[in-house]
Amino acid sequence: MKICGFLQKNNSVDESGRILRSFKDGAAKNLLSCDNGDPRFRRTETDFSNLFARDLLPAKNGEEPSLQFLLEIVEILTNYVRKTFDRSTKVLDFHHPHQLLEGMEGFNLELSDQPESLEQILVDCRDTLKYGVRTGHPRFFNQLSTGLDIVGLAGEWLTSTANTNMFTYEIAPVFVLMEQLTLKKMREIVGWPDGEGDGIFSPGGAISNMYSVMIARYKFFPVVKTKGMAAAPRLILFTSEHSHYSIKKTSAALGFGTENLILLNTDESGRSQNLHLFIPFPWFQGYVPMYVNATAGTTVYGAFDPINEIADICEKHNMWLHVDGAWGGGLLMSRKHRHKLNGVERANSVTWNPHKMMGVPLQCSAILGLLQGCNSMCAGYLFQQDKQYDVTYDTGDKAIQCGRHVDIFKFWLMWKAKGTVGFEQHIDKCLELSAYLYHKIKNREGFEMVFNGEPQHTNVCFWYLPPSLRNLPDGKERRERLHKVAPKIKALMMESGTTMVGYQPQGNKVNFFRMVISNPAATRSDIDFLVDEIERLGNDL
Amino acid sequence: MKICGFLQKNNSVDESGRILRSFKDGAAKNLLSCDNGDPRFRRTETDFSNLFARDLLPAKNGEEPSLQFLLEIVEILTNYVRKTFDRSTKVLDFHHPHQLLEGMEGFNLELSDQPESLEQILVDCRDTLKYGVRTGHPRFFNQLSTGLDIVGLAGEWLTSTANTNMFTYEIAPVFVLMEQLTLKKMREIVGWPDGEGDGIFSPGGAISNMYSVMIARYKFFPVVKTKGMAAAPRLILFTSEHSHYSIKKTSAALGFGTENLILLNTDESGRSQNLHLFIPFPWFQGYVPMYVNATAGTTVYGAFDPINEIADICEKHNMWLHVDGAWGGGLLMSRKHRHKLNGVERANSVTWNPHKMMGVPLQCSAILGLLQGCNSMCAGYLFQQDKQYDVTYDTGDKAIQCGRHVDIFKFWLMWKAKGTVGFEQHIDKCLELSAYLYHKIKNREGFEMVFNGEPQHTNVCFWYLPPSLRNLPDGKERRERLHKVAPKIKALMMESGTTMVGYQPQGNKVNFFRMVISNPAATRSDIDFLVDEIERLGNDL
Repeated sequence: MKICGFLQKNNSVDESGRILRSFKDGAAKNLLSCDNGDPRFRRTETDFSNLFARDLLPAKNGEEPSLQFLLEIVEILTNYVRKTFDRSTKVLDFHHPHQLLEGMEGFNLELSDQPESLEQILVDCRDTLKYGVRTGHPRFFNQLSTGLDIVGLAGEWLTSTANTNMFTYEIAPVFVLMEQLTLKKMREIVGWPDGEGDGIFSPGGAISNMYSVMIARYKFFPVVKTKGMAAAPRLILFTSEHSHYSIKKTSAALGFGTENLILLNTDESGRSQNLHLFIPFPWFQGYVPMYVNATAGTTVYGAFDPINEIADICEKHNMWLHVDGAWGGGLLMSRKHRHKLNGVERANSVTWNPHKMMGVPLQCSAILGLLQGCNSMCAGYLFQQDKQYDVTYDTGDKAIQCGRHVDIFKFWLMWKAKGTVGFEQHIDKCLELSAYLYHKIKNREGFEMVFNGEPQHTNVCFWYLPPSLRNLPDGKERRERLHKVAPKIKALMMESGTTMVGYQPQGNKVNFFRMVISNPAATRSDIDFLVDEIERLGNDL
Repeated sequence: MKICGFLQKNNSVDESGRILRSFKDGAAKNLLSCDNGDPRFRRTETDFSNLFARDLLPAKNGEEPSLQFLLEIVEILTNYVRKTFDRSTKVLDFHHPHQLLEGMEGFNLELSDQPESLEQILVDCRDTLKYGVRTGHPRFFNQLSTGLDIVGLAGEWLTSTANTNMFTYEIAPVFVLMEQLTLKKMREIVGWPDGEGDGIFSPGGAISNMYSVMIARYKFFPVVKTKGMAAAPRLILFTSEHSHYSIKKTSAALGFGTENLILLNTDESGRSQNLHLFIPFPWFQGYVPMYVNATAGTTVYGAFDPINEIADICEKHNMWLHVDGAWGGGLLMSRKHRHKLNGVERANSVTWNPHKMMGVPLQCSAILGLLQGCNSMCAGYLFQQDKQYDVTYDTGDKAIQCGRHVDIFKFWLMWKAKGTVGFEQHIDKCLELSAYLYHKIKNREGFEMVFNGEPQHTNVCFWYLPPSLRNLPDGKERRERLHKVAPKIKALMMESGTTMVGYQPQGNKVNFFRMVISNPAATRSDIDFLVDEIERLGNDL
């Protein structure tokens, strides 16, 4: 048996007999891939019970234990990846909070003063995954972000390893340039001439939407930056009642007040309407309508607001038009479906989350629009003007953050690997699947659609009526009982761990299921499975 | 030669001859670790030039290419980790933006419509790391966040693989509980009785500080949430002129206005003073002093504001006390140094970034304080009250974000692995190193300290005077020339790639170096190297 080079090198003068023993024992038991062309990439069977974090790099002789520890982690992770895509595994192994807190089979969440061995750390990693939810599982449909893209995952691993920060070109030269090129490409796809404009990746769609309101305010009332909201008239914002709740959070946070956010009602399919009724309104007491959010792909119905109609009104009355395409923006990549966002090129700002419909790992959200000036404070310790390089690439001062996580790389890498056409195929496929589901259940006994017509996005909203409810006349009792069906089925679903789909009420509509498809692993058989599972679990309710 | 089991399994009915060839060719050339106890973890020499993203999972027969691709990435990453800790490698290989944009040796940043082979993707990954900055290098001192913790890195890799979202217990059961337990532990360490209170991990210290102002406003003027800033009196915020610029950004963003943020001046060492002079001021026109930020560890000087003094005034005048311990909070883990934050237990809210002084990978920032109610909007599609589990664990509605990245796991895992004592040792060591630097240069020819006395934190601020400046009398010319020295040395440093340290002006002080130490890999020899390097590069200026 060969002893690998690294161990030999450290063999003689190793002051840490304990560490060496961990490897010698391993080597004696099993030694992997010494025939490897690259002598440095090999896994030995290491005794981690005798190793601690302090034995890893930068510790003396820390290289080999660090490598072995990371490879052991990679084994855990690749096993997890494999199982994620395996339909014979569960989506989750549900436990209540108190069960996990009490400690499942030795999985102790409490932190202590003394270190634990790396063996225990590896066990903790396995347990963390074991009791989690496989969001990449082909039958996980619970959120707008699903799936596990292998290239995206590799991108995230690299990002973590590079462990840097987006605020300056100085410490993130490549990532800063990737961000700029990718944002420009996105603006071109939105349809802004020559991809002109600006933008940034932010920590999620809610923050991107927050940026949109900040930059609108800065455009119309720059004085607010220095003098506060007291220096502006009372400003009115518009969004639809089906829009994402982040617009409301932003109204509260930025000092507008939620009462100054007018919720437009929607048509039956969830599309915003009646903005025109508000605008000629005699705006007394100095109220000024300033901002309209049009949603491209609402969270629950997947509806697309009529952007062109809204843009006409915004142009006429000098209001800011934001398009929240956090969920629907991905459709811009599809020649077949991008017409649903017609008019988006007239928006002043756009939110678009590649981590939703485009399958990019969390988090990856872009706000497109002119940010410069809005948030800048010119901190001297970061954004020195006397650096040796072109400091216009120091983009950090646009952000409300100081440090900013590198969200771009995985997206850039996926784009390289799939091409624009790869994203298009993924999106078209997801929409085909949702059409398949719609046609499968629209006339099926026990199923009732929440709104008529083929879904615009991949959202399919429906009630399941157990046989016991099917002959009840429409009325209070039926509504009350139906309201409880989806939560009950969902609870059973989570306990059996077979699939996951979301539910919620909306307006005066009692709890219904909202199926969404963004998972590249999902197939028609998974849709069939979901429908069967709902019937199986709900039949006796 | 053995053919590994997986290949055999897929051998007969493989419809994708191309994929199979990629592996057969590899297998024929080289086949690694078939003796591995676990038959699934092995690396084959794969021809990635013939493989594309579409061949990876969830593609049919995608498991083996996915595994091989991930292992290839891991090889790239572990090589990078190894080099990061190797002092014979450079910290960076500097190129100007236009050079990288023009394409370095085939490294093409542009995105295209068609997919690239996985071979090219791997090359792109290598190039991305090659032209980046090794923030974990023992001689990288440029930011407050430095170092590369191996356990933290493993934690991030796992987090990426789990690819989930913090908003509900439903899809992040383990991570949500880890966050709660860790935040409670941090509150105990702050000194709040029984660790009571609340908190959240946010995307960086700037956002954490933003939360502090939001929750202060909600406490005193909850009406702002619904009616906007117009419903409140004019509110005044205080912070010191040395505090982080995020307080200013927040004043602008939340609608207070930067002019309503009063910048307190500081003593010679950067500690905030004179708050007491402002408070008895006759606050005409309805101005109300509401919020004071005390910084524990300023960005440039590392100064600790006198929290107890400030707390006395805040208590007396009913103002919110926030402690921005983004940088200095870590010292709470050290029995020797935590006295510098005496009084922090009297704060209403605290920012504390484990990704700075505690060496946790980016990003990891906590805001501690009562958030509930401030941002909640009770979105029905996420925070259903009729779920089967205890929905008080659905903590997402506290946040201004909707989706929220899992920042907790790497920190929890590091805490498990190091224990509280491990963090303490790291912090004590960094402070010892900075004392070493201070004593080394305080009387050294050509060096001049920016402020007197031993540094409170690891910040050591100093000018280097090249021989040509040493005999110049104090005055305009000397100041102007000295102002240019640090940028010149920094540029030379980046071009030679040997080390990195920050510089900036502060108030009326011309450009000086700010050395900070948070890197666990740094030793006295690295400090010696930095000093020698500054002398070497600056001697002839």
